[in-house]
Amino acid sequence: MLEREFVDWLVAQRREQSGVKLGIGDDAAVLEIAGSLPQLAVSTDSIADGVHFQSSEHSLSQIGHKAIAVSLSDMAAMGVRPLAATVSIFAPKSFSLTEMQKLHLSIQATADRFDVTIVGGDTNRWDGKLVVGTTLIGDAGTATEGLSYWTMSDAKAGDAILVSGKLGGSILNNHIDFEPRVMLALELARRFQINAATDITDSLALDLDNIATQSGCGFQLEGDTIPISRDAKTCSQSSGRSPLDHALYDGEDFELILCVAPEPAAEILSAGIPVTRIGVMTSDTDKLIRDSADCELRHLPIKGFEH
Amino acid sequence: MLEREFVDWLVAQRREQSGVKLGIGDDAAVLEIAGSLPQLAVSTDSIADGVHFQSSEHSLSQIGHKAIAVSLSDMAAMGVRPLAATVSIFAPKSFSLTEMQKLHLSIQATADRFDVTIVGGDTNRWDGKLVVGTTLIGDAGTATEGLSYWTMSDAKAGDAILVSGKLGGSILNNHIDFEPRVMLALELARRFQINAATDITDSLALDLDNIATQSGCGFQLEGDTIPISRDAKTCSQSSGRSPLDHALYDGEDFELILCVAPEPAAEILSAGIPVTRIGVMTSDTDKLIRDSADCELRHLPIKGFEH
Repeated sequence: MLEREFVDWLVAQRREQSGVKLGIGDDAAVLEIAGSLPQLAVSTDSIADGVHFQSSEHSLSQIGHKAIAVSLSDMAAMGVRPLAATVSIFAPKSFSLTEMQKLHLSIQATADRFDVTIVGGDTNRWDGKLVVGTTLIGDAGTATEGLSYWTMSDAKAGDAILVSGKLGGSILNNHIDFEPRVMLALELARRFQINAATDITDSLALDLDNIATQSGCGFQLEGDTIPISRDAKTCSQSSGRSPLDHALYDGEDFELILCVAPEPAAEILSAGIPVTRIGVMTSDTDKLIRDSADCELRHLPIKGFEH
Repeated sequence: MLEREFVDWLVAQRREQSGVKLGIGDDAAVLEIAGSLPQLAVSTDSIADGVHFQSSEHSLSQIGHKAIAVSLSDMAAMGVRPLAATVSIFAPKSFSLTEMQKLHLSIQATADRFDVTIVGGDTNRWDGKLVVGTTLIGDAGTATEGLSYWTMSDAKAGDAILVSGKLGGSILNNHIDFEPRVMLALELARRFQINAATDITDSLALDLDNIATQSGCGFQLEGDTIPISRDAKTCSQSSGRSPLDHALYDGEDFELILCVAPEPAAEILSAGIPVTRIGVMTSDTDKLIRDSADCELRHLPIKGFEH
């Protein structure tokens, strides 16, 4: 009964952790919230072999990292501090205890780097392929301080559109080894008013379109300002698509899109925070991009990565 | 892109719900906690086709019910009030939008019955079989009122062992259509001191053994007091095993095992609360059962259901 051995091993690994009244090994975990928690952020995400990773290609260490990093990226997209996570695993029957442990330790290592406690989980073996799900709980602040988390529906016409990192070509490496932008998000949330935000999962075009649609706005992107990764250029050499096309449509960059009023946007940029201004939200609902070749504004096709 | 259509449908279904600041459709949900939440219970559970249900045999309505009922049962096992849930679905490529909706509506219907809000989720289609995971968040009360949730590690020698319902033969029906004992647990938690509890997933023998091991106790069961279901008797006719054997070892009854000091145990029983006294926790670590045929105490083999 590998599941039992694995849980015994997990229980033996248990450390005293502040905020955890009751950890792995009971029917549920119990968290003690410092002070008390008036608003709670919750997100869940799952990755599966053949869809979000390839077990023939990626190591258990990479898979474990991605499993929790996708949920951490959701917390970053909300501008909230992640506190605790649960992990749910369906492992193929061929999996050994050592493989289960390796997977768990890599999830744990990434959780540790973000001060996130893994408080519980569920382990199964089955005929199917590996599936790893994580649920994250974060501290969404207090209502009395005003809106203390970022939605996708509060962008305003005139907001600058900022993105973190460089985009495109994530299939080569970044989709599995990316750094969730939790630290950047917490710094921004502490210092600046952010009107709307999300992380790039489907694609820059599609995720920005989600913000625009939910906020009742449109946008204008400046094509030549979009930060393009080296991997987008590499992909471009064999795909017949431009590096910009990769940056707009590849998805799984797990970078932040932020909509910020002009003044705080200027402050963010002059403070040297590593984000790039790529355009502006508009009051009509057109989704436009300026072509750097002829400086014309054209309609941006909205599409994204499908697994 | 069925996932997107499904999420659009979910968003359209969204109702105003007290306590939900931000529901499905953003990067994370945000819950507003009435008063504030000093202690939070979190549990996660997943069910898969061919392991916990058979898609050829069970309806989507049954599957949806079980998907959330297993996690609700964990909350019942902790004696805490469930508040909110997230749902994660991997659906086969053959699934239609209507099937996704049917699955969701059945999860929702069971959640509604227990005043649980579904605050978020994650939907994928893939080459594999149907997997549904749920994470539940519950209110584990306040530390100042003393221990306000039930663990598996605080049973005491001399505690009466109580179980809800009737046991065995769950494979015929109860493993998928069971009623999670949330209402019973909340009534018990409000009125009585419960020292330890769990729900029967692996088996009465194995789950009670978990409590005994974690609490540093043993137990003595009275074989002829164990409540045996009609389905255990039906199974017995073809299995060559006794109905008692089915009640001890079948598992997935999702009934509560409760360890309670003699005085409150007597009060619970005389109050007409539907539980049965089946034995007593002991100070040594022997796991015994009295054979009703010869009244002898014998060692109880510890084993449980493996999917």
